[in-house]
Amino acid sequence: MTLQKDPIERLVKAFGTLPGIGEKSALRLTYHLLRSQPEKGLELSAAISDVLNNVRRCQECQTFTTADLCPICQDESRDKSTICVVEQVQDMLAIERSHFYRGLFHVLHGAISPIDGVGPEALTIDSLIKRLEKGQVSELIIATNTDTGGETTALYIARLAAPYVNKVTRLASGLPRGGYLEYVDSATLGAALKFRHDL
Amino acid sequence: MTLQKDPIERLVKAFGTLPGIGEKSALRLTYHLLRSQPEKGLELSAAISDVLNNVRRCQECQTFTTADLCPICQDESRDKSTICVVEQVQDMLAIERSHFYRGLFHVLHGAISPIDGVGPEALTIDSLIKRLEKGQVSELIIATNTDTGGETTALYIARLAAPYVNKVTRLASGLPRGGYLEYVDSATLGAALKFRHDL
Repeated sequence: MTLQKDPIERLVKAFGTLPGIGEKSALRLTYHLLRSQPEKGLELSAAISDVLNNVRRCQECQTFTTADLCPICQDESRDKSTICVVEQVQDMLAIERSHFYRGLFHVLHGAISPIDGVGPEALTIDSLIKRLEKGQVSELIIATNTDTGGETTALYIARLAAPYVNKVTRLASGLPRGGYLEYVDSATLGAALKFRHDL
Repeated sequence: MTLQKDPIERLVKAFGTLPGIGEKSALRLTYHLLRSQPEKGLELSAAISDVLNNVRRCQECQTFTTADLCPICQDESRDKSTICVVEQVQDMLAIERSHFYRGLFHVLHGAISPIDGVGPEALTIDSLIKRLEKGQVSELIIATNTDTGGETTALYIARLAAPYVNKVTRLASGLPRGGYLEYVDSATLGAALKFRHDL
């Protein structure tokens, strides 16, 4: 017989390791599953196993996928001369939703953050450079976040990528579309002024 | 071969059925598990199964427990002449943390809410009345929430319980301890005035 701690405490602890879920939320989720039909919990449990067993990283862009190559890397109609570098898969999905981009992606799975012990080697920068070395990419668009980690990562990658591509670009900063100027923070307003363009 | 939908979509959907987790959070949790060590997801999956297989309701107070009776109902030192009725297990834990109560509990697992299709029969009111019928309880403290559902449930239970107990009480409403009067909402302030006591 194994020494087993209380199953409720165990699940509360397991939920609590997830990002954005504190002790109270973890308790609430646990009791919710206990009050629901067992099928709900069984499905969640099975779905987690399914993801762990069947999802891997795309060999090219490193996004999560069930095949060797993700649908975007497999898509012959995408512009293979442009790679857009993002921190997370969610960022890639956000850009896809905009319908403004037809090139390929590269997912870093994070940003450089010395304070959290995340160095460049923890990201997928090596495999990005290997893709660039093939010489088929002319523009690298760096779409990391605009916080310190994202900016550091952008500069780091820009330097490494420079020998292999014609240009390295960064997403513009400025006013949100359909937004009100008075609610825009000073740093963003500063960027909007600095990068103002002719009308 | 079974027709299987995408494992990522499946897990996002499963997370999304949990309370307080919308589509964005569900995506974030899914990608978090994919980026983490597999042990983390395996533990969560196993913990859910563990809870579903080994946790049931206390035969007396209906709280979640791994035995026939919960530790509180098993505790001979508790005052068995008082039952405190709460909506959720979390409410019971909150009262326990206050260290002001030494009686027993009864967990309703919800509140009457016609708008959500929750009638009295969906709660554990039947088993509460069965406990009261034994004639050992003199005071029933109704500690349901102070929203419409909680108040309705309190009145409903008070009427049913009246024949079996000496008194049915309700938790006091009033100012929070250590709080500032100016931040207290009008309804609470009204209750604090109405139930003011001599000093």
